[in-house]
Amino acid sequence: MKTNRIEAFSDGVMAIIITIMVLELKAPHDPTPTSLVKMWPVFFAYVLSFVIIAIYWVNHHYLIHLVSHVDATILWANINLLFWISLLPWVTVYLGDNHALPFPVALYAAVSAAGGLSFFLLRASIARHHHHEPDFLRLYKKMLRKNLIAIFIYMVAMALAFIYTPLALMLIATPAAMYFLPERGLGFFVNGRSS
Amino acid sequence: MKTNRIEAFSDGVMAIIITIMVLELKAPHDPTPTSLVKMWPVFFAYVLSFVIIAIYWVNHHYLIHLVSHVDATILWANINLLFWISLLPWVTVYLGDNHALPFPVALYAAVSAAGGLSFFLLRASIARHHHHEPDFLRLYKKMLRKNLIAIFIYMVAMALAFIYTPLALMLIATPAAMYFLPERGLGFFVNGRSS
Amino acid sequence: MKTNRIEAFSDGVMAIIITIMVLELKAPHDPTPTSLVKMWPVFFAYVLSFVIIAIYWVNHHYLIHLVSHVDATILWANINLLFWISLLPWVTVYLGDNHALPFPVALYAAVSAAGGLSFFLLRASIARHHHHEPDFLRLYKKMLRKNLIAIFIYMVAMALAFIYTPLALMLIATPAAMYFLPERGLGFFVNGRSS
Amino acid sequence: MKTNRIEAFSDGVMAIIITIMVLELKAPHDPTPTSLVKMWPVFFAYVLSFVIIAIYWVNHHYLIHLVSHVDATILWANINLLFWISLLPWVTVYLGDNHALPFPVALYAAVSAAGGLSFFLLRASIARHHHHEPDFLRLYKKMLRKNLIAIFIYMVAMALAFIYTPLALMLIATPAAMYFLPERGLGFFVNGRSS
Repeated sequence: MKTNRIEAFSDGVMAIIITIMVLELKAPHDPTPTSLVKMWPVFFAYVLSFVIIAIYWVNHHYLIHLVSHVDATILWANINLLFWISLLPWVTVYLGDNHALPFPVALYAAVSAAGGLSFFLLRASIARHHHHEPDFLRLYKKMLRKNLIAIFIYMVAMALAFIYTPLALMLIATPAAMYFLPERGLGFFVNGRSS
Repeated sequence: MKTNRIEAFSDGVMAIIITIMVLELKAPHDPTPTSLVKMWPVFFAYVLSFVIIAIYWVNHHYLIHLVSHVDATILWANINLLFWISLLPWVTVYLGDNHALPFPVALYAAVSAAGGLSFFLLRASIARHHHHEPDFLRLYKKMLRKNLIAIFIYMVAMALAFIYTPLALMLIATPAAMYFLPERGLGFFVNGRSS
Repeated sequence: MKTNRIEAFSDGVMAIIITIMVLELKAPHDPTPTSLVKMWPVFFAYVLSFVIIAIYWVNHHYLIHLVSHVDATILWANINLLFWISLLPWVTVYLGDNHALPFPVALYAAVSAAGGLSFFLLRASIARHHHHEPDFLRLYKKMLRKNLIAIFIYMVAMALAFIYTPLALMLIATPAAMYFLPERGLGFFVNGRSS
Repeated sequence: MKTNRIEAFSDGVMAIIITIMVLELKAPHDPTPTSLVKMWPVFFAYVLSFVIIAIYWVNHHYLIHLVSHVDATILWANINLLFWISLLPWVTVYLGDNHALPFPVALYAAVSAAGGLSFFLLRASIARHHHHEPDFLRLYKKMLRKNLIAIFIYMVAMALAFIYTPLALMLIATPAAMYFLPERGLGFFVNGRSS
């Protein structure tokens, strides 16, 4: 199986996931600004998930772009990643509808951690075939650090949700923000090849 | 990242947004023509949003088509645009379900203005790299005028919604209609290159 | 604008429309075969709309395939067609939920007639530029007859829905069936070019 | 009609089907772990359907990839397959919402069997034109055995659902698991061509 096929399917799935979340944004029956403001956890979760899926999409493309062919392990590592991303709309609703209570926040963090871990596994399955290519290795190391930090933050947020939920929410938003900060040679697209 | 990738993803997202709106078109329980006619704000909002997203799609393609490569700023300016377009189905339902009350109409205008502004920002982020290309500049100026007029109209409609709602509704529909009117050398696709 | 772009967008929209209809297939609360059997109008409408959209997709591709470039008229004729097809999931639910009562059946027929008419207009907008190409003309005439028959049948069904609804339902299913029947040189894909 | 067109449409439909299932995953109103655990049939059905559609996608691509051109029979055999896959989200909800009662389990098995049979028919419609190509025949025979076993297991599960439902559920999950087991020269992607 060629790379462009797995890319097109993953693109399709991620485009749908990022879009269908809006179907779960229920409009309040009371058409007033105050009833909208009360929905802040719903909007917080929506914006956060939108940004997270966009980041997955950018990174996924960048990773797959380095690969020339796909074996069964990569294929299923990719489907595993899509599975966990597909659960994001659901935990987004769960978080928003329950007004950011401890357990839904922890579940959101857990699914995010599983997504981060799946991305790690996908990269590892690709690295098996490309460990001798300097281009891939350089990107691999850059991505690896951010990936591991993100998984770690999500796992801390998961535990913290039951202790102090607002901080856990802030932690959950951290990995997404991390990708916007310009870093010296660390940004996944801030280098010579992508611009 | 190459242009065709950002194009394919944006296409996918816009195709999904334009289509899923129909899921929010609830059929009235009473199967009579009168109960359908009462739903006119729902249908008005549906048709309007359908046309607006179609115009975004046409303009987006035309804009991206001029670009040869995409940097991080363009990438995130594009994701920002898709975010605001993704909110259109939600404000469409909010407008339709509340029978075009002042606040939902103002919110629809606000999200439309944000979408117009995001399109402006996307074009600006692209213009940074193409300010010396005559082809791009000519299109840029044509698009700019319509874009600024649309943002201005949406902002007027936002304020007017609380004063005289029917006029605000008409204003909201104006930018969409504006793109159908044949103008001398101003239409975004009515020129030699696109036909 | 090139043909492949309008094709990709139309494909995306039609793939989504044909698929999201299943979201409106509500499972009965009572998990028995009899409660499923009572849902027959829902399943009838689902199967019928699925087949109709599939036929639109096949014909649309075949038509667009003959075109080399797209102007503003063709672009908006295409968006108009997609608009009416996008209403099919909604009238499908309306028909199914109201157990095939006269008015929903007439509305389904009306939207189907509007879809057929939009296809006719799209073809006419394409024919303006290709009236001198023998390949296009041959296909044009073949498609034209089936298209006009379908519009006529839908309009008869619309009126008949209020007189004898079961016959109107049968009429609505006729144009879809018509495309499966092998005809001498008339089938839209049963000729030398497509196989 | 060329192969890449049918491939793109099928890809789109399968990407949407695999993704929209998450919209049917309703969050429990009670935000506790116990209320989530009680939802196990919903999650079981979600994971199972996700894997089954992913397997369809992988096999479908592999099959279509061998074909150079598509006739009307292949086209409609493909649309028939997509129709049965499109029902998977619906039976998934039916199974999950009714806590894996006998009839919904049997219906899930029946739709799965119909999907397997449709895949068999699609392959048969393709085989008519490629019966003299050794590459196709080798793959054909490999796929055929797994396909027939899967249909047989689904039909046994359908009957068993009314006798001992838990065993029927296990049987339904068997064909999906079957594709992960490494087999000597039998796996559809575990051979020299795909890696």
